[in-house]
Amino acid sequence: MTNAQFPHFSDRIKNIPESFIREILKVSSRPEMISFAGGLPNPNFFPVEKLASAAEKVLSKDGKAALQYWITEGYLPLRDYIAQWQSRRMGYRIEAEEVLMLNGSQQGLDLVGKLFLNPGNTALLEGPSYLGAIQAFAAYQPIFHHIEIKGGGPDIKSFNEAMKKLGPAIFYCIPNFQNPTGNTYDRFHREQIASTDCSPNTIWVEDNPYGEIYFEDNSLPNLCSLLPERTVHLGSFSKIISPGMRLGWAVGPREVMRRMAIAKQASDLHSNNLAQRIVYQFLVDNSLDQHLNSIRSFYKEQASLMIRSMQDHFPEEVSWITPKGGMFIWATLPEGLKASALLVKATQQNVIFVPGDHFYVGGCDGGNSLRMNFSNPSQGEIVKGVKIMGELIHSMMQGESPPDA
Amino acid sequence: MTNAQFPHFSDRIKNIPESFIREILKVSSRPEMISFAGGLPNPNFFPVEKLASAAEKVLSKDGKAALQYWITEGYLPLRDYIAQWQSRRMGYRIEAEEVLMLNGSQQGLDLVGKLFLNPGNTALLEGPSYLGAIQAFAAYQPIFHHIEIKGGGPDIKSFNEAMKKLGPAIFYCIPNFQNPTGNTYDRFHREQIASTDCSPNTIWVEDNPYGEIYFEDNSLPNLCSLLPERTVHLGSFSKIISPGMRLGWAVGPREVMRRMAIAKQASDLHSNNLAQRIVYQFLVDNSLDQHLNSIRSFYKEQASLMIRSMQDHFPEEVSWITPKGGMFIWATLPEGLKASALLVKATQQNVIFVPGDHFYVGGCDGGNSLRMNFSNPSQGEIVKGVKIMGELIHSMMQGESPPDA
Repeated sequence: MTNAQFPHFSDRIKNIPESFIREILKVSSRPEMISFAGGLPNPNFFPVEKLASAAEKVLSKDGKAALQYWITEGYLPLRDYIAQWQSRRMGYRIEAEEVLMLNGSQQGLDLVGKLFLNPGNTALLEGPSYLGAIQAFAAYQPIFHHIEIKGGGPDIKSFNEAMKKLGPAIFYCIPNFQNPTGNTYDRFHREQIASTDCSPNTIWVEDNPYGEIYFEDNSLPNLCSLLPERTVHLGSFSKIISPGMRLGWAVGPREVMRRMAIAKQASDLHSNNLAQRIVYQFLVDNSLDQHLNSIRSFYKEQASLMIRSMQDHFPEEVSWITPKGGMFIWATLPEGLKASALLVKATQQNVIFVPGDHFYVGGCDGGNSLRMNFSNPSQGEIVKGVKIMGELIHSMMQGESPPDA
Repeated sequence: MTNAQFPHFSDRIKNIPESFIREILKVSSRPEMISFAGGLPNPNFFPVEKLASAAEKVLSKDGKAALQYWITEGYLPLRDYIAQWQSRRMGYRIEAEEVLMLNGSQQGLDLVGKLFLNPGNTALLEGPSYLGAIQAFAAYQPIFHHIEIKGGGPDIKSFNEAMKKLGPAIFYCIPNFQNPTGNTYDRFHREQIASTDCSPNTIWVEDNPYGEIYFEDNSLPNLCSLLPERTVHLGSFSKIISPGMRLGWAVGPREVMRRMAIAKQASDLHSNNLAQRIVYQFLVDNSLDQHLNSIRSFYKEQASLMIRSMQDHFPEEVSWITPKGGMFIWATLPEGLKASALLVKATQQNVIFVPGDHFYVGGCDGGNSLRMNFSNPSQGEIVKGVKIMGELIHSMMQGESPPDA
């Protein structure tokens, strides 16, 4: 009964690129491997014992309710906590009703695609962009366009032209400590792009998983503050409490949130009710600020150490963006050197990272950029891994042909 | 900047019907309300303390790993447990690699739609069918067809004709204790439809959330046993351990599971890692059979009590399907009586149920059927609620016009 055609997959599924990172992470599970490839938060900052005590409280106090079906929008006390916290953070009033709980902010990307992308619509992304967003949107068959980000943000002229000419259904960006580049929009660029003359139908999607992991200050306005009536803002507990619990949220205009809840209901009814209550109990019983401060100062140290090691060991022809927060450093090799060739050599010496071309739709950026994660490796691994990479770059620059060329 | 067009939603989202049940459940939260409307498992059978002890174990033993990102496919020991358990249950060998963990089996419906439905493809459903499946598939813009289920299963002639004429992309069914009718396919119908001459591209989607809640026996072959090479089988812990933890799974051909994992990765990266480990620990430390037996005998008693009350209080012109498992009874009023009119009257007397037309795409079934849930109400509520409904049906049959007519 089966034949060569079977199974007959939809057109959209053929569109979703497989994750190179997923493949590379399989290699990274070898214990001797120094991995700058992943995007994992440091597990030493998961509040394991406090979450265990929160879980015990939730289950003993209200176990039956915590284990039952719940409404799609989420556990109201948690949504209310997020609304109040984010109101202070964003400088405008957010109500609990405008907060939708998600299975990590990744689900927000899928739902944004579901809600706003007809096949053939334009999705305007930063170039490079978050691979998971490309995957999520790809299922809805948009036409992708990248807008180049330089230093303080998107090139204003190109951005205005792209918004005008393409009339994108969505503009997707990560203004704070971007994945993969670690880049942050400055105030000028935020204000400029927020005042662009764009199609009245464009939804702005501001992805902010790293926003709380700032090294210096957090005084820059978020796009949702500047354009609250047309921005879907995605937040997440993944980088600050636990990614394994899969809890993020969306904040946005009420009509968008209402429709997003319908789409979420069709997708999975609701997010884990027990996990929402455990995280809420943790937030009630502990100081989030104190917890965040300890993550911030540790990640800042890690980033500084990686930068210092790069200064010590990388040829001066290699450039990079010094991150003001988040988890990543984006480095650019001299033109002509391929990050993928460096990866082949580095893997042989048990060091891995992600070549930059994987963060573009269609995979092109000159091939000489790469992303390095500093949140997860130990300090010893940072020093040793960067040294190995530096030696390999030096030797590649001296014209030794890479083994796969 | 905003205008009347904004926000400009995709065509697909306009397709998703809002859930009437969602609306009616808002009414059901009033404490004086007797609700036969929901589809909630009885929380007295949630193993609260055992899950609390499992959570404590998981977090103290391996907390950092349980709170970290995990692979999309799920926690391998849990997938392996499910594979072994389901192999015994289904009578053919299932490997852990063929099991994909989901956020409840509802997510399986979304992913099946994403994987197999191009706009305009045919989705063949039972009539009536599970509303959540209609919602999930609707987002992928298929053309829906219903196949009538009579007693032992789909009418074989109509089924063969529909499969041949429509060449559906998917055939979706709940052969065991269906939601909403409680109906179960007999062996003859299972074997007949499994041997139908269908399009080589049709995927069979066997949804089995109630399969473990059988009252008599479980000796009937599942469709995945009869057609393993073309069936996606969806299972769930929601009805037997906890729906709030949102854990279900899909089993199917390897190439389908591989693509489904890619689609899931794009949707939400992975399911709650902590919850998967808690459920696994629960399964290792306790007898699932013993737990299931206590649910089975309780639900069987509840169903019997509801049937007896219906025999006592409903006019003999009302017919119903006596369920052999699951959580629902489907009753049919005499022709001409509207279940929606009965609901209006019943609500005024604090009893609610779901009129049957909500379980059809387009909402037609003659309007005289209704779904009653017996898993969640107390025994006192069952007796009292059925009595009130019976009196109302009697008075409607005596020609008193309903208040909204």
